[in-house]
Amino acid sequence: MEIMRVTGSLVCTRRVPGLGVTDLRLLCDASGGLAVATDTVGASPGSWVFTVSGSAARYAVGDPALQTDLAIGGIIDDWDDDPVT
Amino acid sequence: MEIMRVTGSLVCTRRVPGLGVTDLRLLCDASGGLAVATDTVGASPGSWVFTVSGSAARYAVGDPALQTDLAIGGIIDDWDDDPVT
Amino acid sequence: MEIMRVTGSLVCTRRVPGLGVTDLRLLCDASGGLAVATDTVGASPGSWVFTVSGSAARYAVGDPALQTDLAIGGIIDDWDDDPVT
Amino acid sequence: MEIMRVTGSLVCTRRVPGLGVTDLRLLCDASGGLAVATDTVGASPGSWVFTVSGSAARYAVGDPALQTDLAIGGIIDDWDDDPVT
Amino acid sequence: MEIMRVTGSLVCTRRVPGLGVTDLRLLCDASGGLAVATDTVGASPGSWVFTVSGSAARYAVGDPALQTDLAIGGIIDDWDDDPVT
Repeated sequence: MEIMRVTGSLVCTRRVPGLGVTDLRLLCDASGGLAVATDTVGASPGSWVFTVSGSAARYAVGDPALQTDLAIGGIIDDWDDDPVT
Repeated sequence: MEIMRVTGSLVCTRRVPGLGVTDLRLLCDASGGLAVATDTVGASPGSWVFTVSGSAARYAVGDPALQTDLAIGGIIDDWDDDPVT
Repeated sequence: MEIMRVTGSLVCTRRVPGLGVTDLRLLCDASGGLAVATDTVGASPGSWVFTVSGSAARYAVGDPALQTDLAIGGIIDDWDDDPVT
Repeated sequence: MEIMRVTGSLVCTRRVPGLGVTDLRLLCDASGGLAVATDTVGASPGSWVFTVSGSAARYAVGDPALQTDLAIGGIIDDWDDDPVT
Repeated sequence: MEIMRVTGSLVCTRRVPGLGVTDLRLLCDASGGLAVATDTVGASPGSWVFTVSGSAARYAVGDPALQTDLAIGGIIDDWDDDPVT
């Protein structure tokens, strides 16, 4: 799973059946690259989230009609990062 | 999922069975790399699309005879990118 | 599988169902990148671990309710690295 | 899927059961990196091919005894690349 | 699949159930990065091997109790690399 930040949304009227009615969020990763993820937790622009990729994205969301390869797994409240020196 | 742009098509007469009758599009990603994706939504050169990778590509398309690892998931009409500063 | 080091934990109250009750650890890989993994072996900050990715992460952990794409597979006691010259 | 070029073959007498009787080709990708793929279409050195990765590689080939993560999906005759300016 | 070289072994007493009784080898890839793979063919340090990743790693090995994401697929005797100029 990775840490990313929500920066916006995607408007796509013509889609494949398995992604027909899903919110698609634009995300930015640590190196500045863009990614597109399905969002079932209601993340807003500016939120820090963690993402689940691959087949786990489908299973974690718990909606068998949602055929994604990247899902927002949760909204990060805080992290306790203790770099080891 | 990733944002890519369609640049052309691939002509391949000799193929494995699982990709026998599929349109194969050439795509360009953000860093200029080429990729090949199956296309069931009818994207034309110049279109901005988002792609679905891995096993989700097969499930999203909804055609069990199409054994792809990268599918065009939809054509992008617009995006609402709100970089957080 | 990859070798990583635990650096902290993630606090996320709003999550998808498949990751509802799991410890999420922050890990640092060899190139300094951050990753998030589920932890069922009880690794503490500073521990060197190896991680299992993809669908193997779910199966290795042995808990069908844990829908992760990256799991801590074990805590490294020692390694016997014999670089071939 | 990716575009690669066949550069040779691999000789491996000691293998795991799922790859026991398969032709293994050496491929070169766009950035010069080497990869190994199973070949069921009979590609020869110098051929430009596209490759299928992940679980799709097994399904596309259509042989349930072939447990590969990268398969040659087809031999490229031609491509119609129309860079958008 | 990729070409890698065995450089050592990993000692991990505390592991997840799906990797409980497996030999874990340290491998070095072409760019000098380290990876960890399960080994069922008995590769020794210095051996050149090819590795199978993802779900194919589990299926190729043929042992349903081995939940790996990277397996040594075979030991390379020789390769016939014919760079196309």
